[in-house]
Formats: sequence, structure tokens, C-alpha cells
Amino acid sequence: MGAVKTRRMPRAVREQQMLDAAVRIFGQRGYTAASMDDIAELAGVSKPLVYLYLNSKEDLFLAVIRREAAALTEAVRAGVRPDQPADRRLWHGLLAFFEHTARHPDAWSVLHLQARTHGEPFAGEAAAMRAAIVTFVTQLIAVAARDAHRDPDLPDHEVAGLAEALVGAAESLAAWANTADGIGARQAAGTLMNFAWAGLGSLMAGRRWSPPGE
Amino acid sequence: MGAVKTRRMPRAVREQQMLDAAVRIFGQRGYTAASMDDIAELAGVSKPLVYLYLNSKEDLFLAVIRREAAALTEAVRAGVRPDQPADRRLWHGLLAFFEHTARHPDAWSVLHLQARTHGEPFAGEAAAMRAAIVTFVTQLIAVAARDAHRDPDLPDHEVAGLAEALVGAAESLAAWANTADGIGARQAAGTLMNFAWAGLGSLMAGRRWSPPGE
Repeated sequence: MGAVKTRRMPRAVREQQMLDAAVRIFGQRGYTAASMDDIAELAGVSKPLVYLYLNSKEDLFLAVIRREAAALTEAVRAGVRPDQPADRRLWHGLLAFFEHTARHPDAWSVLHLQARTHGEPFAGEAAAMRAAIVTFVTQLIAVAARDAHRDPDLPDHEVAGLAEALVGAAESLAAWANTADGIGARQAAGTLMNFAWAGLGSLMAGRRWSPPGE
Repeated sequence: MGAVKTRRMPRAVREQQMLDAAVRIFGQRGYTAASMDDIAELAGVSKPLVYLYLNSKEDLFLAVIRREAAALTEAVRAGVRPDQPADRRLWHGLLAFFEHTARHPDAWSVLHLQARTHGEPFAGEAAAMRAAIVTFVTQLIAVAARDAHRDPDLPDHEVAGLAEALVGAAESLAAWANTADGIGARQAAGTLMNFAWAGLGSLMAGRRWSPPGE
């Protein structure tokens, strides 16, 4: 907004630049290999300033996870319009998810891979974000099932399992779309809707699949 | 097979005991926190003997990944009988997968979480196993689509995307079933079939889901 690049940038702006640089370095090199030197250089600031603002590599990584987790969950929530029918709510939610992960591949790599396996408190933050998305999807499915009025017996633990399956499928497709050539957000979302919705749709309509003759 | 516990156990048997202990320690504590002392103690051998047989913590971790990846892919392949109709092939494959991951939760934690994020060569081994399973599932879906003769235009990249979605959903449900109370392998497989098969089944029958009025 008309801000001029000077050395006397507000702290909040500088901090966001450091976080932007950190997302790229952590996402592309991994948490262990990432160095504060590289992050400072990419952000165009001195290393002592990074330490002054963000305290340590651990705190910087945690700040990155928190910022990117909030951005992703917010993008998905904003994509879903509650006044729409169930399939469109899901479609727009998935589209928002895949558009966000395609635009921010390094952030997705941090959240999906790096954050989960370098112990606490990182794994806890990543797990909390995932749990929030699973809860959101669980509610979408539960409301859709109630709207459909066809399967009042769809038990809670089954709805929870369906939400876990959907989130896992979306995670897998996001990683695939970000590495395969020419797979866009729209195509990934379309593939997942064709995989999931007709399946969920059949369930809502009371058409279950049953194990063969058992 | 009538083997007697003695100090003069064959090397191959001792090695398997060390690998068994390593799976538990790596799976429960994570790669970084796992110590060779703990692994040797759990295996009931001296630490020098672990180094003599397996060389280093890195080599031991790699040996664990290779053994457990081979066991999981073999279990899934063995579960699928090629003479069955497509839905049963998928059902038995999923059941074999969830039964294996439920019986070997530490091995699943090593393959799904630990192996993927501690750099090479571990990530490469885990990725190779996952790619082999995705290829296997891709072939299952392609054969099912061909058998159905309904959607000759299901393009290769869409089949690949469906396989990625299915594998991601299965990974997510395996982690969920191993942590949620009272969710057995059969229930996880049933939930995924109800999520996936009716969806894939609709696709095979040429009933696609399309984005709304766009």
C-alpha cells in the first residue's frame, strides 16, 4: 500500500519477510538442513536481527508452522459457503484447499512433512491443525447426512472415519499435484470429488457397500 | 521350529531379533531419540554385537525400513486374489493392509512417519515402497475400469490420481485406527470401501460428478 522500501521498516513487516524466507528454506531443505544464515540472507536482513525478532531456529520454525496452519485452515473455511448444497460445499472446500497448497508448496511441505516429525512442540501444532480440518470436514459430512435424511443410522465413528479418509486423500493428492506435471488445483479437486462424492453420495442415499457374502 | 534358546544362536536369527527390537524403539521413540543402548537391551544382546552385525544406527534404520516395507507390500499383494471381481480384490487388499498395520503399529509408524523425514537414503526407501503400492493400486483400478467397459475414456492421469487418493485415505485411516479406541482392521477397511468403492464404482459406470454449472 504505497510503502517505500527503507531500512526503517516496521517490525511487523520485517518479521513477515523473515517468515516468508523461513517458509521457503524450511520447505525446500527440511528443518534439520535449514540454516539461519540462509534464512537471513533470503530475507535480506542480518542474522542477529533474525535472532532478535524470532529468538531461535526452534521459535522461528514454530512461528512458521502457526502462521501457515492458520492461513491454510482459513482458506478452506473461506472457500465453503454454508448456504450451498452439500456437494458444492465440499467442492468449494476442496478447490480452496488445492489452490492454497498449489500456491504455497513450501508451506505445504512444512506442514505436511517437516512439522510432523521433528518432535514437540512442532508435531503438536501440526496435529492441532489437522484435527481442526478433520473436525470441519466431519461437520460437513454430518450435516450432509442429516440433510439427506436417508441414513439416520450413519454412526458418529463412521462419519469420523469418512472425514479421516477424505483428509488423507486430499493430503496425498496435494503432494502428488505439486510434484506431477500439469496437474492443477481444479483437476485435483475434480478427481477427489469423483472419488469421494459419488461414494459419500451413495452412502447418504443409503446405498452401502457390504463385504461379500460374510 | 524346535529351536532351543542358546547363546550360540545363528546370526540370521540374532539379526532378526535386533531388527524386531529396533522396530519397536524407532516406532515408539522416533529415529532421533532412539538409542542403540535401548535397542541392544531390548534385543537381549550387547551393543558391540549390534554394531558388529548392523554397522551403525543409520544402517540399522535402513535395514528396518527395507524389511518392514517388504513385509507390508507382500501382505497387500498376498491379500488380493486376481480371480475375484474388482470390488472384492480391493476389499481384500484393504483388509490385508489394515490387518498388517494394526498388527505392526510400530512398523507402520516407522514407514509412514519416521522414514519419510530424516533425509536420504531413508526417504527414498519409503518413497519407493509407496510408489510400488500406488502402482499396484493403479493397476487394480485400470483393470477394474477396463472390465467395466463403461468408461473407456478414463484417462491415465485420472486413474493415477484416484490411486493416490485411495492410498492417502488408507494411510490416514491406518493412523486413525491405530490411535482411536475400538476401531478394528475390518471396520477401517469397511469405512474405506464405503467411501471409495461406491465412488469408484460410479465412475466405472460412467456416472461422473461435475462441478456445478461451470
